Amino acid sequence: MTDGKKAAASLESLFHPRSIAVCGSFNHPFRWWLRDYYIDPFLQAGYDGPLYLVDAKGSGDVAGLPVHRSLADLPEPVDYVVCCMSAEKTPALLEECRDKGVKTVQIFTAGFAEAGDPEATALQDRLVEIARPSGIRIIGPNCMGVYYPKGGLSFSTSFPNEPGPIGLMCQSGGNTTYITRLAAYRGLRFSKVVSYGNACDIDECDLLEYMTGDPETKVIAAYIEGTRDGPRFVEALTRAASVKPVVVFKGGHTQAGSRATASHTGALAGSESTWDALLRQAGAIRVYSAEETVDMLMALVRMRPPKGARVCVVGNGGGSSVMATDECEQAGLTMVPIPTEVTERLTSFIPPVGQMLRNPIDCVHLIPTQRDGTFAGKPVPDWREIVKGTEVKPGDKGWGDFLQVIEEWQGVDAILFQYSIDINPFVITTWRIGTAAGLMVAGARACSLPKAIVVHMLADNDSTGAWATAVELCKEAELPLFFSLRSAARAMRRIVDYGASRPEALAALHEEG
Amino acid sequence: MTDGKKAAASLESLFHPRSIAVCGSFNHPFRWWLRDYYIDPFLQAGYDGPLYLVDAKGSGDVAGLPVHRSLADLPEPVDYVVCCMSAEKTPALLEECRDKGVKTVQIFTAGFAEAGDPEATALQDRLVEIARPSGIRIIGPNCMGVYYPKGGLSFSTSFPNEPGPIGLMCQSGGNTTYITRLAAYRGLRFSKVVSYGNACDIDECDLLEYMTGDPETKVIAAYIEGTRDGPRFVEALTRAASVKPVVVFKGGHTQAGSRATASHTGALAGSESTWDALLRQAGAIRVYSAEETVDMLMALVRMRPPKGARVCVVGNGGGSSVMATDECEQAGLTMVPIPTEVTERLTSFIPPVGQMLRNPIDCVHLIPTQRDGTFAGKPVPDWREIVKGTEVKPGDKGWGDFLQVIEEWQGVDAILFQYSIDINPFVITTWRIGTAAGLMVAGARACSLPKAIVVHMLADNDSTGAWATAVELCKEAELPLFFSLRSAARAMRRIVDYGASRPEALAALHEEG
Repeated sequence: MTDGKKAAASLESLFHPRSIAVCGSFNHPFRWWLRDYYIDPFLQAGYDGPLYLVDAKGSGDVAGLPVHRSLADLPEPVDYVVCCMSAEKTPALLEECRDKGVKTVQIFTAGFAEAGDPEATALQDRLVEIARPSGIRIIGPNCMGVYYPKGGLSFSTSFPNEPGPIGLMCQSGGNTTYITRLAAYRGLRFSKVVSYGNACDIDECDLLEYMTGDPETKVIAAYIEGTRDGPRFVEALTRAASVKPVVVFKGGHTQAGSRATASHTGALAGSESTWDALLRQAGAIRVYSAEETVDMLMALVRMRPPKGARVCVVGNGGGSSVMATDECEQAGLTMVPIPTEVTERLTSFIPPVGQMLRNPIDCVHLIPTQRDGTFAGKPVPDWREIVKGTEVKPGDKGWGDFLQVIEEWQGVDAILFQYSIDINPFVITTWRIGTAAGLMVAGARACSLPKAIVVHMLADNDSTGAWATAVELCKEAELPLFFSLRSAARAMRRIVDYGASRPEALAALHEEG
Repeated sequence: MTDGKKAAASLESLFHPRSIAVCGSFNHPFRWWLRDYYIDPFLQAGYDGPLYLVDAKGSGDVAGLPVHRSLADLPEPVDYVVCCMSAEKTPALLEECRDKGVKTVQIFTAGFAEAGDPEATALQDRLVEIARPSGIRIIGPNCMGVYYPKGGLSFSTSFPNEPGPIGLMCQSGGNTTYITRLAAYRGLRFSKVVSYGNACDIDECDLLEYMTGDPETKVIAAYIEGTRDGPRFVEALTRAASVKPVVVFKGGHTQAGSRATASHTGALAGSESTWDALLRQAGAIRVYSAEETVDMLMALVRMRPPKGARVCVVGNGGGSSVMATDECEQAGLTMVPIPTEVTERLTSFIPPVGQMLRNPIDCVHLIPTQRDGTFAGKPVPDWREIVKGTEVKPGDKGWGDFLQVIEEWQGVDAILFQYSIDINPFVITTWRIGTAAGLMVAGARACSLPKAIVVHMLADNDSTGAWATAVELCKEAELPLFFSLRSAARAMRRIVDYGASRPEALAALHEEG
């Protein structure tokens, strides 16, 4: 067994603990979040082994679970311990873990190497000294831990219970939560998510090696602030990127940002030029924000890769069509003008007044806004029925004919659908948006060309219900959903480029996924 | 009187009509939006003259207003007509307007020059031919019209009734609505907003000249797709920018985008390099999206201009602090490291564990999240009372001491406050966010250095109530509010630059405002 494979095997067990113990001050008035992070999420995610609470000064029940006085008191072996004790108490807890035969300790507690003072760094080193000889693996310190929906591990009740193809490793706990929430909201699902903080033991190299071999993980995403073992990291990343798409968000890419990472997770960040060369040569897809991370994951998982960069934009609004064009061109996509004969075919079923039919296509006719409670002038009890009942096919004088004309033209590689919610001055109701966005979703779903759909961000909170409706429709249809034209266009362009440079990795993803 | 002054005088009257008539098919089942656009908004905005509805085939009442058969039937003179008839009926309506002595006709109707065919362009020319000799001014066609809260003119019930210092002219109706909504949601208010569409008569030059002289307008914003009269536009813009800040969002800045503008409003867009030189030389602040337009308006209206680019970031979250640092540096701001003696003063009242105190400052201690219904461990009936009751002052071991230390350091020109809502895995409640964000708002409000506050975008819809709460608190305190660190940092950097190049215009704004 190579070292990498050994590491991977030892990580596998951390996702399958037979029992879990959470250690913290459950009765402390300021530690109410203990339940939010490390009790309710395990229960909601359906963890099916015993879940113990341990607090030397505790008593009674929390969330219906009795509070025990020590690990030693527990009736059964414990595989996985979550440590929320104060930093100075962690070495003693690690010793108890060793005596109990614990396999993995996830240390939520902060106040170690990231504090930047020698004592705190020595304390972190002490943890490793205790853990290593006994074979205990440490996640953290200064981290949120593991979200593994298939195994019932989680640290937020906001995360979905259904698993998916994305493996995420994240040095920042806040980014872990934000990226996971955002991706989930847009319909993406995860195989395994690990917030690994200061990485005193399990680090980005271990996780990369593990996820490379993990059959549940089809795409890898990483938020990384630094690495301690450059050569091993390069090897692990290069190997990973050769078999799966790997999206890397490097935190601290400016000089000041790099200083900040030291203060956040104690990471040795390295210079920007080193990282840039390293990520490029390894074949990783580099991104620069949490949102862009999710955009790339969306494009990888949901978008059928376009063969080229010729696109057509269709949606509502003249101004937003002009802006969409600028964004596409800026992202390196080509807005091919529609030839006259194609426009003529379109005008045979789309009245030309108030419509732009030259790419971009501002085509309100295809997504008319309906008066509340009516559709095409007739009363209809539930707008969802309209969306479900809309059959898109040639001859429908709507999306079916539109798609046929565009597909037969053969002049574009992909279609970007865009829906702007509050460019209309009217009162925005769920009905009005549901019917209009619903028709677009029906069209996008039926489109056989590579595609993306954009539901534009809202201007205010009057329309959150309607917005949620439009987003929900796209999610249900498993469409590649974006919140701005800019992000959709950039992600699409990068998928075109990635497909050209790594055709095997992309093809493998779409075969398996 | 110069031509410019004459134009300005003739525009003044359009904002003060003694009566308004809306012409359209009020009983048509697909024209339900007529009421949403051109009845309810006038009523809600408090327009105090008579509002007539005119429909040759109409009958009965709409929104409690009787439908008349023709303009001629109306008992009184009509100053302002809103035309929602079909394109081919507009010349006849214009003739009726001429006979009735109407001063301004706003043509919502589309299907004119933007359609790109000679007949439709001829129809638009015909309107000008009828209007010009009779002194009628036309807004549009293909536009939403006027929002003038002080005078009770509006086309959306989503727009606020309170006036403010921003004058907005916008060639796209959708962008007019989106920008106005977004700005209003972030607490900005408008003097006059004009959606002017195809600009067959009143155009960007007229509006620039008017707003330059308008005492109600302190800052001008424009979304422009093109101009017909280059020299006049340059003159008007240069003059405007010499007395007031002018923010210009040029739609169609790529080649394909420029083609799209022709199809949208029939604008002659001109080349990108021409526009770039023109806007720079005139002294306009150029932006590239609707969101950036609002960011710049926010910075101009609400931000006290920093003297330099040295900033300090304070907020919650280690990962978001690292990202904030990258964003600031990328935007051209300098994240000055905090000297040891300053850090020492901070640690005298901020416990160092789990806090980054080296700029960026990840300082959860200053904005602790509270268990629902309690504050500092004690039950409190209403979290709003906590925010209101928080007195920030030196000696408070909180924001007061923090601000004193940072201000006395004299090492920074501005502070960026940032609040990330859903980086926490816990269930996000209005209480938890209200108390934490509330404490930050209290701090930001008390900060005497130039500043910005960022409430980060949400990852999902679980937290919209909490988000609205945080946004509302910032609005009430009239803080310079941004939704991403990137946008705040960019806007701040641009204000520093603008202040250096146009100190008078910026100073005038803040004296008067």
